[in-house]
Amino acid sequence: MSTSEIQTVSIDLQQRSYSIAIGSGLIGNPKNYAQLPAASHALLVTNTTVGPLYAEALRGALQTKYAKIHVVTLPDGEAHKTWQTLNLIFDALLENHCDRKTVLFALGGGVVGDMTGFAAASFMRGVPFVQVPTTLLAQVDSSVGGKTGINHPLGKNMIGAFYQPLLVLCDLDTLKTLPPNELSAGLAEIIKYGPIADMTFFDWIEANLQALLDRDPAALAYAVQRCCEIKAWVVGQDERESGLRAILNFGHTFGHAIEAGLGYGNWLHGEAVGCGMVMAAHLSRALGLVDDAFVMRLSKLIRAAGLPIVGPRLDQQDNAACYLDLMRVDKKADAGAIRFVVIDGPSSAAMRNVPDVMVRSVIDVCCT
Amino acid sequence: MSTSEIQTVSIDLQQRSYSIAIGSGLIGNPKNYAQLPAASHALLVTNTTVGPLYAEALRGALQTKYAKIHVVTLPDGEAHKTWQTLNLIFDALLENHCDRKTVLFALGGGVVGDMTGFAAASFMRGVPFVQVPTTLLAQVDSSVGGKTGINHPLGKNMIGAFYQPLLVLCDLDTLKTLPPNELSAGLAEIIKYGPIADMTFFDWIEANLQALLDRDPAALAYAVQRCCEIKAWVVGQDERESGLRAILNFGHTFGHAIEAGLGYGNWLHGEAVGCGMVMAAHLSRALGLVDDAFVMRLSKLIRAAGLPIVGPRLDQQDNAACYLDLMRVDKKADAGAIRFVVIDGPSSAAMRNVPDVMVRSVIDVCCT
Repeated sequence: MSTSEIQTVSIDLQQRSYSIAIGSGLIGNPKNYAQLPAASHALLVTNTTVGPLYAEALRGALQTKYAKIHVVTLPDGEAHKTWQTLNLIFDALLENHCDRKTVLFALGGGVVGDMTGFAAASFMRGVPFVQVPTTLLAQVDSSVGGKTGINHPLGKNMIGAFYQPLLVLCDLDTLKTLPPNELSAGLAEIIKYGPIADMTFFDWIEANLQALLDRDPAALAYAVQRCCEIKAWVVGQDERESGLRAILNFGHTFGHAIEAGLGYGNWLHGEAVGCGMVMAAHLSRALGLVDDAFVMRLSKLIRAAGLPIVGPRLDQQDNAACYLDLMRVDKKADAGAIRFVVIDGPSSAAMRNVPDVMVRSVIDVCCT
Repeated sequence: MSTSEIQTVSIDLQQRSYSIAIGSGLIGNPKNYAQLPAASHALLVTNTTVGPLYAEALRGALQTKYAKIHVVTLPDGEAHKTWQTLNLIFDALLENHCDRKTVLFALGGGVVGDMTGFAAASFMRGVPFVQVPTTLLAQVDSSVGGKTGINHPLGKNMIGAFYQPLLVLCDLDTLKTLPPNELSAGLAEIIKYGPIADMTFFDWIEANLQALLDRDPAALAYAVQRCCEIKAWVVGQDERESGLRAILNFGHTFGHAIEAGLGYGNWLHGEAVGCGMVMAAHLSRALGLVDDAFVMRLSKLIRAAGLPIVGPRLDQQDNAACYLDLMRVDKKADAGAIRFVVIDGPSSAAMRNVPDVMVRSVIDVCCT
C-alpha cells in the first residue's frame, strides 16, 4: 500500500454518520475540508506542543473556506482536562462573536479532542466540529466514536457528552514528531483491539511491532485503518454504550484507577491502559476464562511495546482498597458493583461483576 | 374544571417523548413516580428557597422507589447559574457514588431546572432526570422542551444541551408560596404565547388577569395547561430550534441583553422578557408588521401583570450601542447579524434581520 493514498473508514450512525480519512499530507490540503458546511467562523483548538507544529498548516488550508479563523492554544496534558481549560474554548468563542454555525477543529491528541468535542456539544447547545488527531492514541481510538468530556477530581471523563464529529482526519505525518512514550501509549490502544475483537490483528501486531516502533509508514497506516474499522463496527452497533461498546474499555477500569490515583498526567492514558490490560487479563485468568499462556502472551507484547506491565502502588497501607475505591466511581459501575471487561475467548470480551476478594488478589499480584 | 384532577400534556419526540402532569398535590404522591425507571440512587437538586418548603415531601414520595436519596441545595438566583454552582451537583453525584442509572430531580424554578438538566445531560455522558418546576415561569416554559444550560459572563445560556426529561410534574400548590414578582415573571411567559401562537388565549389572559394575579387555582391550571400545549406543539415540530422553535424567544433577544447588561439576577428573567416583548413589539411596528393598537394592547397587559415596560439604561454614553453589542452574542445571531423574533400578524411570529439604525431608534424610544 502506498502511503500517499487516502484510506477511508465510514462510521454508520444514520444522520450522524461520518468518514475517517487516513493518509499522509492531509492537514494542509484544502480539498479535505471541501465538504464541510459553510460558516463565517472557524475555531482551531490546539495545545502548546502541537500548535507550533501544525496550526499554521491547518489555518492555511481553511483560509479560503472561512472568513475568520481563530486559534486557542490550551496547556498540554491530561492534568489540564478540566473545566478551567474547557472554559478557555468558550471564552474564545464568545470573545470572537462566534455563532451557531461556527466549526471547531480539534488539532491535537486525546485531551484536545475530548475537550473540543465537549465544547462543540455544549456551545450554544451544539455546533459542528472536526477531529484532526495528531497522536497515535487519538487516531486509533479517542477521536473516533463521539465520546467527549472532561475529568472531575473524583473520576476520569465523568462530565461529557456523546457528540459525533463531522469528519476525522488522521494525518500519518504527525506521527513522525510524536515522542516515543506517546507512540507506546498509542500502541496500547492498538493492542487492545486484538483480544476484544480480532486475534488475527493481534498476530499481525506481534509480527510487525518493530516496524510500528520504527514508525514504518505502511505499518502505521495499516494499524490505524484496522483499529478504526473495528471501532467503527462497534460504535455503529452501540453508539451510547448500552452494551457492546463497553468492550472498548478493556484495561480501562484498572487504568482509570491508576490515572486518578497517581494524579492525572503522571502516567499517560495509554500507559495506564497497557498496565490495566495486564491486570484485566489476570482477572480473566482468575475467572477461568483464559489460560496462563494468554496472560503471558499479552503481557509480553505490552512490555515489548514500551509500556509498563506492573501496577503502581497507590496506597502504602492498603493498596487494593485504594484501587477498589477508585474503581467504584467508574461509569460502568452499577449500584456500587464494579463491572470489568474480561476476555472470555479468542477475539471476545464480556462484562462481569467480580467479587472484591478476587480483584484484591489480582491487584496484589500485579502491583509492586 | 376541578383543580384536584390531573391534566396531562404530551410532548411527542419519538423515543424521547414524555408527559407533563399538571395538578394539585402532585409532589408528595408516590403514584406520580411509579413509571420512572428503577435505580439505586436519586439526587434531588433544589435551592435554599424551595428546598425547605418541598424537598421533604418529594423525598418522602420517592423513598419506596430509591434506596439512596441524596439532596443538593444550590444558592438561589440567576446569578448562580454558573459552572461553579453546576459543579456542586457533580460533586454530590460523585461523592455519593451515584451511577449511570441515577435519576436526578430538579425541584425549583428555571435556574434549578436548567442546571439540573445540563448536569443530567453531562454526568457520565447522560443520566435520566425529572422536572418538578415550582415557579409559574418554569411550569409554563423552562421545564418543558429540553433546553438546559448555564450562563457565561459574555452571554446567557451559552453553554448547555438539548436534553429531554423523563417527566415534568407541575404541582400547582407550589404557586401559592411564590413571591408576587415571581408570579408576574411567570405571567410574562404566559402572555408571550398569545402574540406568537394564539390570540384567543391572549383574549382569555386579558379577561382573566385579575384571577391569575389572585392565584385562582382554576385560572392558573388552565394557563399552565394551555401554555404547555402550545410549547409541546412547537417543540414537537422543531426540537433543536432549526426554525419554528425560535418564535418562543419573542422578547428574549432584548430581554437577554437587559439581563446581561444589568448583571444576572438584578431583573428576573420574566421581567426582562416582559420589557423585551414591548421592545420587540415596537420593532415589529417599525417594520410595518403590526399597528400601534397592537403595541399599546400588549404593553398594557404586560404592565397590568406587574412587569416593567420601560427598558433600563445599560450605558450612560451610548445606551443603544450597549444593547446592540450584547445582542450580537445572541444564539440566534448569524455572521454578526442579530435576528429578531417579530410579530407579523395575529397569532404569528417570524424571524427578521433588522438594520441597526431601526433597532437603535426602538431602543431610544423604549428606554428611560
